[in-house]
Amino acid sequence: MITPHIPGFTGYPLDRVDPLRTDAAALSSLAADPKARVLRLPDLHPEVDDAGALVWDALGEAHLDQPLILLGLADGVGHFALLAPTKAGAPLYRAPRLMTLLASLSTEQAALYGTARALIDWHGRHGFCGRCGAETQVIRGGWGRHCCGCTLDHFPRVDPVVIMLAEHGGRVLLGRQATWPVGRYSALAGFLEPGESVEEAVARELYEEAGVRACAVRYVTSQPWPFPAQLMLACVAEVESDTLTLSPAEIEDAFWASRDEVRAALAGAEDARFGAPPLYAVAFTLLKHWAEG
Amino acid sequence: MITPHIPGFTGYPLDRVDPLRTDAAALSSLAADPKARVLRLPDLHPEVDDAGALVWDALGEAHLDQPLILLGLADGVGHFALLAPTKAGAPLYRAPRLMTLLASLSTEQAALYGTARALIDWHGRHGFCGRCGAETQVIRGGWGRHCCGCTLDHFPRVDPVVIMLAEHGGRVLLGRQATWPVGRYSALAGFLEPGESVEEAVARELYEEAGVRACAVRYVTSQPWPFPAQLMLACVAEVESDTLTLSPAEIEDAFWASRDEVRAALAGAEDARFGAPPLYAVAFTLLKHWAEG
Repeated sequence: MITPHIPGFTGYPLDRVDPLRTDAAALSSLAADPKARVLRLPDLHPEVDDAGALVWDALGEAHLDQPLILLGLADGVGHFALLAPTKAGAPLYRAPRLMTLLASLSTEQAALYGTARALIDWHGRHGFCGRCGAETQVIRGGWGRHCCGCTLDHFPRVDPVVIMLAEHGGRVLLGRQATWPVGRYSALAGFLEPGESVEEAVARELYEEAGVRACAVRYVTSQPWPFPAQLMLACVAEVESDTLTLSPAEIEDAFWASRDEVRAALAGAEDARFGAPPLYAVAFTLLKHWAEG
Repeated sequence: MITPHIPGFTGYPLDRVDPLRTDAAALSSLAADPKARVLRLPDLHPEVDDAGALVWDALGEAHLDQPLILLGLADGVGHFALLAPTKAGAPLYRAPRLMTLLASLSTEQAALYGTARALIDWHGRHGFCGRCGAETQVIRGGWGRHCCGCTLDHFPRVDPVVIMLAEHGGRVLLGRQATWPVGRYSALAGFLEPGESVEEAVARELYEEAGVRACAVRYVTSQPWPFPAQLMLACVAEVESDTLTLSPAEIEDAFWASRDEVRAALAGAEDARFGAPPLYAVAFTLLKHWAEG
């Protein structure tokens, strides 16, 4: 069983070697090493072997003329992702097959996949400079883009998202969106805006979505979420009242769950009141933390 | 005295009214209200009155044909910022006059200024679509841009940054960059990357910059930092050893400070071993938290 307190997509197993990213000679040498590996990512999906590990290919000379992302080193060997052009249209962030594959990966293997995918996705959305409109080109071993017009450097974007359990009278608030699998409920969540602290964003989202006022917010844990590149900041917020005013645009239904109800759902009990979020979602970690606390 | 446990730039005093941002009729009505206000921002600097409050002007008809950012409502009255084109070149994020003005603002007034500034700055860097290079136009009352080419919507960027005190044997690690005011030392910090949790980014940065290995990371607090739009995530990290290997590219000098030394610096004592970060920086809050804990 996956240890539930370790959030999914954490435990990146490579050394990120930031200083090497700007060292052209070192990058060339790593890519030319016959041991160099490139992550197999058909249609941006992971390919998983029988042992639950991601599949790598030899980098080989065929790829040396294509832009590469240096994911990092393992035992001194460069591990790369190919910056292949992605298909037109939005990537399928929540394809059922992808979710099944993710459930078969350890957190460390998911961290590798997630990082590669987040970076490839970012490159696909930053081929032009937002400031001047000119084309950009890959720099820093795949960890940036340089504008050929105004010379501005661009760095991979990470969007902070707050995800939180409102708590009142020994119960926590769970909600669901209309697009989710039948019966699934989870913590509420939303993007943090410019000018907000984590604690302020938690309070605003709870009020906007459920009409409850937070009086104390405590941080629990965090997780990178690669669809496309969020930083999930998981919190518990004590609220003043359990009277709900739901925002129908965001929440289809919500209810207050007891510790026993949460424990039953996390254990996958047949008679559980709701379906829990998947193990690899930080909402699972957050619920587990609360249910045990 | 400003309460040191409230991080600077927090306590935004307006209602952000997210649902109104997509309501064109409501936005027009708010802007046409004779009570509507627009923040005075000469050269992106705040203008501060004798009571330490930001100065607002009547919005007036003169501005109705210019793009506006709806900062929010106070008593039902719309408060706006003008999306005026900024001067060419990088804004002066750390101009001495700006730092002096910031020190004179309450956290709530600084939160208002910071939010307006972060948004204006973001618009200036996103006039073109990163995906297709076409021009973008303002949407959502200033809280987004829409691509006129590929129709992608863009939302204001917030970059998560970890800032942390390494702790060992009852002392914490403080460092300085060569560009800082003489004698100033503070917590180490760095941008979080795709594929990292907060805790992983803290551990990576401490190892990269100072050669120390984190064995436990605890979150303390957070702060929006508007130069241009960071989310500062402040932590304390227990580390395995106090032996330092500094990265000369990032850290000019570093030392381990005792609680008494930190207290003296925060109090501004003449014989303090180092100069503390300013009150409005979350590093001040973090140091105060540690010194009192």
